[in-house]
Order: sequence, then C-alpha cells, then structure tokens
Amino acid sequence: MRVRVDWRASVSLTGRILKYLSVAFLVPIAVSLLYSQQDLLVFVATMAGTVTAGALLERVGPAEDPGPREAFLMVGLTWLLVAVVGAAPYVLAGSGTVASPVNALFESMSGFTTTGATVMRDISVDAHSRELMMWRQLTQWLGGMGIVVLAVAILTELSVGGAQLMEAEAPGPGIEKLTPQIAETARALWLAYIGFSVAQAVLLYLLGVSGLAPEMTAYGAIAHTFTTMPTGGFSPQARSIEAFSWAVQWAIIPFMVVAGTNFVLFWHVLTGDWREAVEDSEVRFYAGCLASLSAIVSVLLFVDNALVDAENVGRVAGLVEPSIRHAAFQIVSIVTTTGYASMNFDVWSPPAQYVLVFAMFLGGSAGSTGGGIKMIRWLVILKSIRRELFTTVHPEAVRPVRLAGRSLDENAVRGIYTFTLLYFVVFLVGTLLLAVDAARVGGIGIEVIGLVTATAATLGNIGPGLGMVGPMGNYLQFPWSSRLLMVGLMWIGRLEIFPVLVLLTRAFWRS
Amino acid sequence: MRVRVDWRASVSLTGRILKYLSVAFLVPIAVSLLYSQQDLLVFVATMAGTVTAGALLERVGPAEDPGPREAFLMVGLTWLLVAVVGAAPYVLAGSGTVASPVNALFESMSGFTTTGATVMRDISVDAHSRELMMWRQLTQWLGGMGIVVLAVAILTELSVGGAQLMEAEAPGPGIEKLTPQIAETARALWLAYIGFSVAQAVLLYLLGVSGLAPEMTAYGAIAHTFTTMPTGGFSPQARSIEAFSWAVQWAIIPFMVVAGTNFVLFWHVLTGDWREAVEDSEVRFYAGCLASLSAIVSVLLFVDNALVDAENVGRVAGLVEPSIRHAAFQIVSIVTTTGYASMNFDVWSPPAQYVLVFAMFLGGSAGSTGGGIKMIRWLVILKSIRRELFTTVHPEAVRPVRLAGRSLDENAVRGIYTFTLLYFVVFLVGTLLLAVDAARVGGIGIEVIGLVTATAATLGNIGPGLGMVGPMGNYLQFPWSSRLLMVGLMWIGRLEIFPVLVLLTRAFWRS
Ligand SMILES: [K+]
Ligand SMILES: [K+]
Repeated sequence: MRVRVDWRASVSLTGRILKYLSVAFLVPIAVSLLYSQQDLLVFVATMAGTVTAGALLERVGPAEDPGPREAFLMVGLTWLLVAVVGAAPYVLAGSGTVASPVNALFESMSGFTTTGATVMRDISVDAHSRELMMWRQLTQWLGGMGIVVLAVAILTELSVGGAQLMEAEAPGPGIEKLTPQIAETARALWLAYIGFSVAQAVLLYLLGVSGLAPEMTAYGAIAHTFTTMPTGGFSPQARSIEAFSWAVQWAIIPFMVVAGTNFVLFWHVLTGDWREAVEDSEVRFYAGCLASLSAIVSVLLFVDNALVDAENVGRVAGLVEPSIRHAAFQIVSIVTTTGYASMNFDVWSPPAQYVLVFAMFLGGSAGSTGGGIKMIRWLVILKSIRRELFTTVHPEAVRPVRLAGRSLDENAVRGIYTFTLLYFVVFLVGTLLLAVDAARVGGIGIEVIGLVTATAATLGNIGPGLGMVGPMGNYLQFPWSSRLLMVGLMWIGRLEIFPVLVLLTRAFWRS
Repeated sequence: MRVRVDWRASVSLTGRILKYLSVAFLVPIAVSLLYSQQDLLVFVATMAGTVTAGALLERVGPAEDPGPREAFLMVGLTWLLVAVVGAAPYVLAGSGTVASPVNALFESMSGFTTTGATVMRDISVDAHSRELMMWRQLTQWLGGMGIVVLAVAILTELSVGGAQLMEAEAPGPGIEKLTPQIAETARALWLAYIGFSVAQAVLLYLLGVSGLAPEMTAYGAIAHTFTTMPTGGFSPQARSIEAFSWAVQWAIIPFMVVAGTNFVLFWHVLTGDWREAVEDSEVRFYAGCLASLSAIVSVLLFVDNALVDAENVGRVAGLVEPSIRHAAFQIVSIVTTTGYASMNFDVWSPPAQYVLVFAMFLGGSAGSTGGGIKMIRWLVILKSIRRELFTTVHPEAVRPVRLAGRSLDENAVRGIYTFTLLYFVVFLVGTLLLAVDAARVGGIGIEVIGLVTATAATLGNIGPGLGMVGPMGNYLQFPWSSRLLMVGLMWIGRLEIFPVLVLLTRAFWRS
C-alpha cells in the first residue's frame, strides 16, 4: 500500500458515528422530563450540536470502505471526538467541579473509555441534576458498546497479533466465520451486552422493592447497570457500592465477572456449545486468577484487626462473610477493571492493598469491555516463558507456544510481548511525566503511591487507585496539565496503545 | 544432549571455587592484625573451614569440562554456597543483628550479589570489628569480580540471547575473538577491574590527606573502593556517602559510572580503539539516561523548598551545586545499581522519589557489575517497538532490529523480551509473596511503597529502596521468612533469573 492515508474518509466515518451518538442524548432528555427538567436545554442543545457537527464532518469526504490506515485513524479520532462532544453537557450545565473544560473532557473521556476516574467533587444527584448524572453513567455504557465491537471486530485485525490470537482462541467456527459480516457480529455481541444489562437492571430493581436493598431505586438500578457491563465503575453515589447492602454487592459480582469475559464465549453458549466455552484456556486462567486472589485477600481481611471499626462498613476482620464479600468484590472489580468499591480499600492493610496493585496489572479478558494488559496476554507470556526455559536446556528443540491445542504463530507471540512491554514503558514514562508535572505546581499532597496507581488506573481504564486517588477520592488534586495527560492515558489505554502510537509515526502519514 | 546432568562435576567445580575463595580471608585477617585482633580467630577458623569444605566437595566428582547444563548448575550452586560460607564470620563474630543465621545469610548474599541491602542495625566499626566490616565490603568486591567473568565469559553463553547480543554489540574483534580463552578474557577484565579499584582507593586517600575530605581514612578509602566497582553499595558508615564531603561525593560519581559500563569497552579503549567504545550504542543510551534523569532530578531538588533544612546535609533547594551533585549522585547510584546515598532521598519530594523508582527498573550495562534489566535490553526493546509500529503500517515490510549497524537475530530479540517480561513477573509475584508474608506477622510498619521498592531493590541488586528500606534504613522490619525470600530474590536477580529457573524445570534434570 503506497498511497497516502485518506484522512477525509476517516473524518467522514467519524462524523457518521457522531450522528448515531446524538440519538443517545434522548436518554438524559427523558430523565430530565421525568425529574427536574433542570438541564433539559443543555441536552437538547448538545443533541442539536452533535447532529450538526456529525453531518458537517460526514461531508468532508466520501464515506468509502476504509483501508487499515483509515480504520486506525477513524478509531483514534472517534474516541477523541466523542469525548469532546460528551464533555459539552458538563460545561453547559455548569454545576460543580466538572464544569471547567479540562475537567469536563476528563470526565467525558473517563466515561467513554469506561475508566471511571472522576474529577467530580460532590458525587450526588443533589449537587448535579439527575439527567447530568445519568449522562455520566450512559457514556460508559455507550463506550462499552463501542469497545465490544472494536475489540472483536476491528481491534483484533489492527492490533499486533490480535487476529491470529482470536483464530487460535476460537477454533471450530473461527472468529472470521462467527458471522460473515462485522455488522452481524456486532449485532450478536450487542445482543448479549444488552441482554445482560436488562437482567442486571431487573435484578437490582427487584432487590430494591423486595427490601433486601432499601437504598436501590429504579434510577439507581439503571445507573449501576449502565456502568457494570462496560466495566465502567461510575456511580451516582459518592460511596460507590459501599452505599448499598450486602445483597447488592453480591449481586453485582457475577455481572462484573461476565463483563470481563470474552463476549465470543457467550456466542458459543448461546449456540449450545457449552464445552467450547468451558474449555477455553483464557476463561480458565481468568477464573483461576479471580479465585486465588480473592482467597488471598479474604484471609488478609479476616486477620486485619485494624479493619474492625471500618468506617461505614462495620466489622470485617474476624467475620467470614464480609471478608469474603469485600475481597471477592474488590478483586473482581480491579481485575475486570470495573473500579467499583464495596468499601474504602484505602484503609486496608498494606499487604492487602498491594494485592490490588498487583491485580491492576492483570486486566480483563480479550474481547470483553475490560481494559489493562488482559488475561490472554499473560497466559501466552507464561506459556512462552516455560517454552523458553525448555529450549534453554534443549537448544535443538523446536517447540511452539500452544493455546487451545493449536500452535500459536510466532508473530502473534511477538506482538503480545511487544504490547505488554510497551504497556510497562508507557506506564513508567507516564508516571514520570505526572511526577515532573506534579513538582511543577509544588507537588502538594501527591504521594508516590498516588502517582503510580493513578497512572495504572487511567492507562488500564480501571478508575480508582490508592492514596489520593483511592475509591472515595478523586483526581482533582492533580494539576490541570496532569489531568490532560491522563485524558491521553485513558485514550491510549482504551485503544490498546498501538492504534494511537501508529498515528504518531512518519510511516503512517507518508505515502 | 540426552545424558543426565553430571551434578558431581558441578559440585566439584564449586568446591574448587571455594578453595580459591578461602584465600580472600587473608584480607580480614590482615585487617585484624593491624587493628584490634578482635575477630582474628573467627576468620582463621572460617578460612580453615572453607579450605576443608572446598577440598571435600572437589572430591565429589571428576573436574571434567562442564557442559552447558553442568555450567548452569555450577553457577547457581557457587553463588549459593559462597553466600553460606560468607555468612559464617557474621555468625561466629556474634556481634549485633547480623549474628543470627538468617541475617548472616542475608548480609552475605547481599554482599556477594553486590546488592548492598542490609540487616545490620548499627553500621559502624564501633559496634562491629573493623575486620568484620571489611569482610562485608570485601564480599562485594569479590562478587563483582565473579560477575565480570560470569557476565562476559559464561552468562552470555547461557542466558537467552546473550551470546548473539554480545556478538552484535562488539563487532570487529567479536567477543569470541576478544581473547581466545575464557581464562585470558577474565584476566583482561580483572585487570581493568583491579586498575580502577586502585585508582579509586588512591584518589579517595589523597582527598583525605589533602584536607578536602577530613573524614576519609585509609580504611575508609579501601572500604569504599571495595563497594564501588562491584556496584555494591555497602559502606562502613551508617550514613553512607552522606558522611563525607562534597569532594568525595563528586569523586565517587565517575567510578560508579565506570562500574556500570560494559567492561568490554575498556578493552577497546586499552587496545587504542577509542572509536569503537564511543560509537557503542549501549554506552550512548546509558549516558543519555544518566544525563537526562540527572537533569530532571536536579531541577526537582532545586525547586523543592521542603529540602532547605535537609538533616545532616544543609541547604539543597535553591542552590545549584548541591542540587546537581545530589541528583547526579543518586541517579548514577540507582541506575548503575550501586545503591550509595549522598543524602537521605527518603525525604525528597514524591516526584523526585518517583524518578528514582523509575530508575530502579533501568539497570547497568551488559558486561558490567550492575544488575537490573540493563540498558541494552531497553535499547533493543525500544528499537523493537519502533519496528513493530512500522510493520503495523507496512505489514509486507521485513525489517530487522539493528544494533551497531548489524541486524539482530530474532531469537536474541525474543530472548530479551522474555527476560524483561520474566523480570516484571518475578517482581510482581515477589512483592505479592512479601505482602502475604508481611500480613502473616501483622504487617506492622510495612508500607506498600516499602514492599514494592524492597522487591525492586533486592531483585535488581540495588540495595536501598524507599520508606522503611530507605537509604538510612534496613531490612530488619521484614519477618525472617521475607528476608529468606529476599535472599532468593538477590540470588535469582544476580544470575539473571534464567539460569536459576532452569534448575527448577523437569527438563533440566531428566536425561
Ligand atoms: K473502569
Ligand atoms: K548494589
């Protein structure tokens, strides 16, 4: 391919996506009509603006079938422009800390990338209108919907080794035969996504009316549904899921697990192929990680005597059910990169906290809405290390890395290696930049653990970290320039780094 | 090779090395005779014991030319047995915290692996005899000598991709032609090692007699020489290099830089081939890292108003020379994995501290006494990422990673990838084990940043970390089981992980 990248086609496609997006504003408009009508005009105006902008951008060029380079550009551009459009309601509503342009962009990017990091100081439907809070939740649900398609239909083709990986992981039908067309694949996966969402909303609502969760209203049920399936983590409650009963906490755990699972597996289950799903090597590794880390943290919480008087939560140490519940909830929340909190884990003992830091570097499954490095990559890396140890002893042996009974292409292995190392490089350098930027303004209140986990939480699309960015904290203590840098980290992390970095190379733009 | 590993040959060779090692006890014996004769018997007894043990082990099998597997076993075994032997004087002397067997093994392993992490509470020649302190320093110098040979002559052959890498990095003569025999190579490199050591000892001594460093005695000059060239970091002063004047601090910086440089380059310089050394890509990358990170930290210290009243050090903030000196000293100390401190960097601002955390993951050059991931690996990784970005845009292009004008073998690249990822895996899992172990004893006083940097500092053979394991702290707060685990981390880190892990595979032991 020696032709110049057709940026007009990319812009045009992005415009079309903005037009689709504008339909989503009907949700906050409906909420507004149901409740206060406080920010009704805000959303009507943004909707009109988005349609106009979309239509104008669509006219920039012919909406031709994009090549790989145009697809890269479109994907990167889409998440950026959607975040900009999504920031408008925060600015126009003008309530609280999210009204400043940088904060609005942060909150919007955090929403659409399903990160869940927040710069909203007063998280409640008193400080902000219900429609604005619902928009905040909805951005995550929309972002998750976008990721489901992107991860399965596009990103695997674009990102290094992704396509080969998918083929190895989904033998039998094979990802390319799963459905003949991207549009049809998307429909199948969206069906699962919407199906689980409806199930969760109904369950949460029933818990509310049954008296098992008196705090759960219809609004709350929908709000939390909008942020669970996309592994988003935004909550209209400042205290996150801590604000709800044990029943709600237990009910949300399986939905987070589902959200972090490869959605292609649900397709297998739906078509009756249970065995395919159960025997999937990534899903076993995923289940093993969740179970073992939850077990470790359960014990750590059970013996943590300082947790006896945990504020708002009551006694945890020495009690079996609360120890297991908070451990499982938090591990599942961090590994799947949801970012909900069932209690303020910033008061946990340092050992238990470190297990969460460890979990921040795992990530959900491939083909899920989860972020981070992801299970499949760690699985391939561990298998590859074992292979390398074997060939060190037997240099003459040729031994491919096997996944689901198939040999993995060496290019796929190299792609996974490169991604994972690049992830660590971006993490280390990102923290370095945040550190230098923090010093610029005096660095007041910014701790090393806050710097490190803030980077891990934004790059990995997790949301909360430790210390100043703990589950009950926010990102307001960072200077505005750092918050802008984090907008970039969320963006680059969500798109799995390569598609964004490629845009910065000369080779991409030169014909 | 289908024969069973000949462990008798490995044990026999290790026995021979113990016999050589016993000669080293003449140094503390000489110091003892010069000063108090307090621990004279301790060292005479250990020397006798070591000779006997060495001779006995040598008889276990025939000292045949070892194959690769026997070499692996020998290397692993040697560092382990040497550490055990080196622990004996601490136990026998019976002074202070290092007298307990676990602590003695920790201090000895920390010495021979040139880590410099300590479990000695009262670091001074008052609490311990001068000969015992000198033995502590000497273990590092001997360990460094072992590493110089190991890194260049053996490890490059054994470790993944090492051999190919060396060939690419040292073109012209080529590592295999540098000298025809390992023994001769070793002699050439030891010559450089000893030469720099003598130069440093003389310089430090002259600074002392000239009045520029009144605290520097002949004992101090030799003691610090013993721990600079091996990038060791032990000091007979509790305050490390903070105890000395600016002149000593400036004088030690270049020697640390040298210690972290590939020793093969000095061979080129010695044979008049300056250009070869200056044009080496790793040395340029190394210099660039040191310069840029020092510059960043200089600025961070200059503006850090909290540092005005730095205890023991005087004013730093707002002063040019002290800011640059402490920044350069600390960055060079951490990047080369020496671990000396010119001031207690645990009181630095969090941003400056994070730069040190970042630097902990760099490491010295290949073929130096430095530990960690190492410059050459990062250079190859960065080049490889750039290549991957290019081939993402141009999938049809075949583009090898080039180093020093030569294409790098793909197996070498894969070996470097595997090592680096394995390093992060061991780091993350090592911290996890330490965290769980800390919880076992109540986790009192153990912070997340302490856990993380303690693992990084022992695995990377650096020595100090932050918080409880800061430069003026020690590793006594960890439970004994954690200290034993760290003995393993120092061992596995020093031998670059693979040679140790290989010993744990079935394939290694089966015929
Ligand atoms: K999230
Ligand atoms: K060291």
